[in-house]
Parts: sequence; C-alpha cells; structure tokens
Amino acid sequence: MEIIFLGTGAGIPGKERNVSAIALKGVNGKNDTWLIDCGEGTQHQMLHAPVKANQISRIFITHLHGDHIFGLPGFLGSRSFQGATSTLFIYGPEGLKGYIEQALTISGTHLNYEVKIEEIKAGQLFQSERWQVSCCELDHRLTSYGYRFAEADRPGKLDVTKLERDGIPKGPWLADMKKGHEVTLPDGRVIAGSEYVTSPLPGRIIAILGDTRPTEQTVKFVQHADLLVHEATFMDQEEEAAKKYGHSTTLEASGVAKRAGVKRLILTHISSRYRQQDMEKFKEEARRQFPNTEVAADFAVYHV
Amino acid sequence: MEIIFLGTGAGIPGKERNVSAIALKGVNGKNDTWLIDCGEGTQHQMLHAPVKANQISRIFITHLHGDHIFGLPGFLGSRSFQGATSTLFIYGPEGLKGYIEQALTISGTHLNYEVKIEEIKAGQLFQSERWQVSCCELDHRLTSYGYRFAEADRPGKLDVTKLERDGIPKGPWLADMKKGHEVTLPDGRVIAGSEYVTSPLPGRIIAILGDTRPTEQTVKFVQHADLLVHEATFMDQEEEAAKKYGHSTTLEASGVAKRAGVKRLILTHISSRYRQQDMEKFKEEARRQFPNTEVAADFAVYHV
Repeated sequence: MEIIFLGTGAGIPGKERNVSAIALKGVNGKNDTWLIDCGEGTQHQMLHAPVKANQISRIFITHLHGDHIFGLPGFLGSRSFQGATSTLFIYGPEGLKGYIEQALTISGTHLNYEVKIEEIKAGQLFQSERWQVSCCELDHRLTSYGYRFAEADRPGKLDVTKLERDGIPKGPWLADMKKGHEVTLPDGRVIAGSEYVTSPLPGRIIAILGDTRPTEQTVKFVQHADLLVHEATFMDQEEEAAKKYGHSTTLEASGVAKRAGVKRLILTHISSRYRQQDMEKFKEEARRQFPNTEVAADFAVYHV
Repeated sequence: MEIIFLGTGAGIPGKERNVSAIALKGVNGKNDTWLIDCGEGTQHQMLHAPVKANQISRIFITHLHGDHIFGLPGFLGSRSFQGATSTLFIYGPEGLKGYIEQALTISGTHLNYEVKIEEIKAGQLFQSERWQVSCCELDHRLTSYGYRFAEADRPGKLDVTKLERDGIPKGPWLADMKKGHEVTLPDGRVIAGSEYVTSPLPGRIIAILGDTRPTEQTVKFVQHADLLVHEATFMDQEEEAAKKYGHSTTLEASGVAKRAGVKRLILTHISSRYRQQDMEKFKEEARRQFPNTEVAADFAVYHV
C-alpha cells in the first residue's frame, strides 16, 4: 500500500505546493485508491502522479474549507469524462452534499456513475472485510474530522521452508492449506494446513487528520497507529498564529505523535511562508520530540 | 493592451492545456485586468503568468459549464488572502450568483473586498469613459454568451515633426496643447493646440465568445472587430462531434471571422484529442478561409 501526497500546502496554492489532497493506493487490491480531501487542482496533480480518477472508489473530506474541497466538482466530472462507471462513495461534514449537488447541477455536469454522499458524525463510518474506518472530531475553526483506517489482521503466509522440509509438493492443495484446511496429498498423506501457515500479519492502522489544534482526543484516537499524518502549518516560533487560526506547529504535531505512541509521523499542510530550503529545519524541529518524522512534499510517495 | 491565454483546453485539464480562462491586461491603465472565464486551476496558471489576482477588477463568465467556472471560488478566496480590497465585478448567466455564494458560505470563505455579481441578459452590460461592453447569446447546450469590448476613440498624439518644424519648445504647455487647448508660449506666440494633435486613434473592438456553434447572430455581433476569439474545439473532420456537443470546428470558426470581416482571429478551447504536434495542421485548416488566424496555447500573450 502506498500513501501519495498530491497537495501539501495550506490555504492557497503556490509554486511548490498545491492545496490538500492525499491518496491511499492499494487499499483493496493493487490499484484501488482512496482519496483524503480534494483541493482545487487535485485532478491536475493526478496527471503527474500514479493516481487515476477511475481507480478512486472512496473520498474522505476532513472539512469544508475551500483548500480541501474546491477540486471536488471538477474531479467528479473528469472521472466520468474519463469513462468511470463504478460507484463513488464520499464522506464528509454536514453541508458537503448540498455543495456537491449544487455545483454539479448549476454546471450541467452529468455523471455516468453513482455518487453516494454520506454526511458524517464522529464514530465508525463503515466496516468491510478488510477495513474498519472511523472518524473523530478535531479542533479547528470549522468542523473538522480525522480519519482512522484500521485494517483487519491479514492471514499468515505458507511457510515455504517447512513445506520443503516435509517434502510437500506444489499443487492446487496449497491454496487450501493456506486457508488452514486439512488436505489429502496425492501420496495419501493427510496434512493439517494450519501447521504450515505463519502467524497472521497484524493489520495496519493509518490515521489522517484534517486541520486542527493538537488535542487529547486526537492522542487517544490515533493511539499506536502505524502511520499518523498530522498537519503542521507552522514552525514552533509561529505558535501564536497556529493558535489564532486553529492550526498546529511542528512541535505540537510531533507531541501528539509521541504521546499517542504511533510508529511514524508525516507532516503536511505546510504554510507557503516556508520554502523548500526551510524544510530541513522544519523537519529537525519535529524530530526533536519524535525522531521518525517526515515532512511531505507534493508527489512524495511512502510505502505503508 | 495584452490578451493572455491562461487555459485553452476543452472540458477537462490535460498536461498541455488547462481549462478555460483568458486575461485582458491593460484595459484601464497598465495593470488593470479583466478575466474571461475561470476554469479550475486558473489561479494556479496565474502563478506562472504576468497576471495578478489583485489586478483583476472584472470577471466575465461566458457560461456555467464546470470547465469555465470551477476555479472561481478558489480564485475569490486567494484574491482576498493576497490582500486585495478593491471591489470585484462578476458578470455571467443566471445561476452564477447562487453558485458563488453557496461555495463561499459552505467553505467559510471570508472576503476582504466586495463582490458585485450581475446575472446578465443579451445587450449592453455597462459603459464607462473608455469601454462599452455588451453581450450576445450564442448557440450551445447551456446558455452561453459572447462578450464584445468596444473601446472609445482615444485622443490623438502630439505631432512631433510639426512641433519641431514650427520651433515650439518643450515645456509644460505641451500637456495643454495635447488636449487641443490654446496656449501662450514664453516667446509670446499664441498657439492652437488642436493644430498639433493627430487624428483620434480609433478604439479597438475585442470580441471573446463562449462555447458555441457558428451562428449568423455572432457574425453581426462581432462585425469588424479588431480581434475575435472564437472556440474551435474540433478540426473539420469532426464536424459531427462539433454539432452534437454544441461546438465549432476550425472551418466554422474561421468562416464566422471571414463573414464578419474581423481583422484577426484567435482560436481556443481545443479538444484534448489534439496535441502540440497537430497544431500546424489545425492552424492551416482555419487559415484556408481566414489567413490572419492564430491558435492559442496556454500562456500565449498577444499584443492587441
């Protein structure tokens, strides 16, 4: 699975960073992609990234500020124009449905696929065989949510060394053994598949938050996540600005990561006052509290 | 005055062309700019063009298809964020006001300037000292307008050769002479300024149209324009597609230019099926009927 940053800037687009959008690719199969936020120009960014509109099956909107939603109507139209016919699920705060429907209606945009829009409240959004998705309210000027994507434990793999040791030949029975079933081999041996399967792989937990001040509720919500994506609009010395506008600093974001005991932190939603040359200092500041921190750039891809 | 093409593609953004937006720079003073249409990513294009959000005083929307309006809400917010405080006038079809207001409201976008939105009907929009702006209904799937910007004749210039011939020295009296006033020179001569001023410069007429089939009404509306900007979504062999989707071909657009007796034609709104390498052929096709034709590219700047 990969997390692909399509837009990592705050407020307005700049030459170095577009406004917010993050893709999670490979959520159910190799290409199935979920999108978190869709600022203006997200579809333009996709032209230069390994993300295709018709591979996106679900969109999660953190909050309704323009830099997180103004790319939605254009994206929806282009997804249809490019031939997509699969249902698209969109989750986000109250008001999202009216916004999308009005933009599509007024512009005469006809979609060749169904859109299911769910206006959310804190709690569990849905559970599938593989994913449990929930959201938590954050602390921003406008209702803002964080999303937690918790994967079910994945089945163990066949232990190739053990299979070879016991002289178990390759064949269609391996698929049944992988499921833990008992099989009868061509030579008559009866084998318990479960004895040849490694322990289940623990599911991953990925938490991606909207704009927010650091909060204790967040610390609980993202507890022990494998990956936390937290906004850090400002560096530490701009703490007053962060408070005033409902954002977080490098130190505040890394403090959340530390207290929540997450494994890895990626910072995004960086103010345009910081340029590429400031990023080492920016990263160092966060790493003082939480060493396993990265600062996202547009088009950065991380393996999860 | 310059016409700057910010987006010259049709329907969806591509790597070579963004969706529609055109800037007219220098309409009232050196930097005053009018914008015609504002597709998604127009503010992004401005980052790489000699167009600044706070220099834009009026926006003219041709029609409400997404590729002509989805950049508006983001542009309005960024114009404020960048410090603009001057009133912005926006003209466009019925429904535009509701669209803009809802997008700004739902996203909590506060503007530090006044926006005056006028939903238009065919006819004269306004007349200022320098410009008479009118619009005409076109033939598209959705109500679509063309705009005609007619400049008042500009005062003549001082005839430098004649001034030198008659030994009229440089000095503050030249400003009065330019206005045609009678002045008294330091040597006592009384001079009629009007005799030293060239004939008035005829005002320019610029017609910029939205998506449309070629129509006889357009031919009348753009009669003798100095510049006609007409859409040409398709080449001649795609005439059926042009008819089906309410667009024009190269030959249809150049036919309008020829019949209207305009001085110059620039084609825009080019389908993404055509690439850079097709453009010579595209242009040649239009030039068969109207030699003074150009095909716009993103970031192309023409002196008007």
